[in-house]
Amino acid sequence: MGKGDAAGAGDVATAEQLGALVAGEGWVVLTGGRPAGVMAAAYRGAKRVPGSLTIGILPAEAGPVAEGVDIAIFTGMGSGRNQINVLSSDVIVACGRGGAGTASEIALALKAGKPVVLVGATPEAIAFFHQLGGAGVTAVPTPEAAVAAIQRILAAAR
Amino acid sequence: MGKGDAAGAGDVATAEQLGALVAGEGWVVLTGGRPAGVMAAAYRGAKRVPGSLTIGILPAEAGPVAEGVDIAIFTGMGSGRNQINVLSSDVIVACGRGGAGTASEIALALKAGKPVVLVGATPEAIAFFHQLGGAGVTAVPTPEAAVAAIQRILAAAR
Amino acid sequence: MGKGDAAGAGDVATAEQLGALVAGEGWVVLTGGRPAGVMAAAYRGAKRVPGSLTIGILPAEAGPVAEGVDIAIFTGMGSGRNQINVLSSDVIVACGRGGAGTASEIALALKAGKPVVLVGATPEAIAFFHQLGGAGVTAVPTPEAAVAAIQRILAAAR
Amino acid sequence: MGKGDAAGAGDVATAEQLGALVAGEGWVVLTGGRPAGVMAAAYRGAKRVPGSLTIGILPAEAGPVAEGVDIAIFTGMGSGRNQINVLSSDVIVACGRGGAGTASEIALALKAGKPVVLVGATPEAIAFFHQLGGAGVTAVPTPEAAVAAIQRILAAAR
Repeated sequence: MGKGDAAGAGDVATAEQLGALVAGEGWVVLTGGRPAGVMAAAYRGAKRVPGSLTIGILPAEAGPVAEGVDIAIFTGMGSGRNQINVLSSDVIVACGRGGAGTASEIALALKAGKPVVLVGATPEAIAFFHQLGGAGVTAVPTPEAAVAAIQRILAAAR
Repeated sequence: MGKGDAAGAGDVATAEQLGALVAGEGWVVLTGGRPAGVMAAAYRGAKRVPGSLTIGILPAEAGPVAEGVDIAIFTGMGSGRNQINVLSSDVIVACGRGGAGTASEIALALKAGKPVVLVGATPEAIAFFHQLGGAGVTAVPTPEAAVAAIQRILAAAR
Repeated sequence: MGKGDAAGAGDVATAEQLGALVAGEGWVVLTGGRPAGVMAAAYRGAKRVPGSLTIGILPAEAGPVAEGVDIAIFTGMGSGRNQINVLSSDVIVACGRGGAGTASEIALALKAGKPVVLVGATPEAIAFFHQLGGAGVTAVPTPEAAVAAIQRILAAAR
Repeated sequence: MGKGDAAGAGDVATAEQLGALVAGEGWVVLTGGRPAGVMAAAYRGAKRVPGSLTIGILPAEAGPVAEGVDIAIFTGMGSGRNQINVLSSDVIVACGRGGAGTASEIALALKAGKPVVLVGATPEAIAFFHQLGGAGVTAVPTPEAAVAAIQRILAAAR
């Protein structure tokens, strides 16, 4: 998860690399489906991996979908769809300096008891979400470290 | 779409055959994801086709999913998820003597301007939905006729 | 519940009378909140009764609300909000020749086990919803008969 | 908005005082409707004011409602209803040391462009939400200061 239209170049690069690494592990990439920012970059990265599978959960009732989305789910719920993103994921990764939408997804994930990985978050975000989620939140600096954290989370859940 | 727990044996057989035929066309099978009735049967049929892709849009926040669902989307919205089923589909097929949930999906599909195919519906359902949806509703007797109707609908939409 | 933009003059008159009668019983009037058709008429009728209380459950995230709505609930869910209309009501009244949105509300009400009253519905709608909902559906010709039906339903539920 | 089952005694006292002050201004009190924690306390405070009006937006499809709720809206959406709380409010007040649900509401409010007032939040929450929401977030120490902040916000919006 991460910023759409206002995403910075660094966060977009992180998201593309993360999408490729996640797909390379054979995991499904699910994010918000819009052709913008971190979402579009994650799909772009994932689709560099042959056989990857990607899902977009869209806020609109119909309309544009990011390139590289295999399965488009249209909710017509605006940011209300953030809860569906969270419930349908095993691990939620927040990519870069997320905006308010991303923060809502991290919070909804913690509410639902889902593990959260923060990649390249600000110190303020890390401090707040650690206070809120305790051991349910892992902060890492790079996409590679995010994948290692997800592996540990999935191994512990087995 | 069709009945879950209370589905009759004939409707279940129709759904399984329909799932196989739809998947055989290379189309994605999307229904309500629960391990019951028409939903479970449609996935069972689809999974007889190698390379088929199936999606379940579940009413619960977590929990059991029908065998044969490749992608499980958890909404936590109960029957509110019926709107998402409809918005995410190109054609809505109602299978057999549907219950109230199925009727809501047919109505939401017509509201959203999506084409509807009724397979083995009652005369009362056919009369009502024709009145409501006009040319947007096609009633057919068999799964084979449903697939032919979908092909005509998709060809006309191109 | 009833048609918005495409409501006929007869259905609008029925809705206004129904709104006044329902509010006159001291019951809260809840419908879809938009400034159109049956919704707007029901609020107009209700507000002729001093002390009436009216609720609008809106499909949009913000924007215009029918005159006479005391409490506006914005869902941003489009027709997905129909499920909330139904869950938040004790009795669902479908007013006149409803469209697809109204049909979805009747079906969702039956799915949720809520009693439904049809006022001035077509013979096709009456036949279909009786088949679907059995004793949960009461068809009546006039607003006065609808109020009498609601009184019987509420008395039986006590 | 604030914690339900796990609310601390101080936050509950703050919520009750806030409910009374908000209702005393003639404003409608809207929160999550459950008979627990900050929600229940806010309604309790509001109902000490004659003529107050209170709304509960509930996560469940049916079931228990906090005492003092005048209008119960059942969504059946779990924490997905947090988006509706936010869209239906003019100002969002987070009361005390909120949990993950409250954090999601603050974030969704900022996403929707709604003003947020934090009463008695932790330094980590204040730092994070200021970073996220800038001038859209006002942190205050007491219910009285919250009401003064809401008055300034409403006056500026006129």
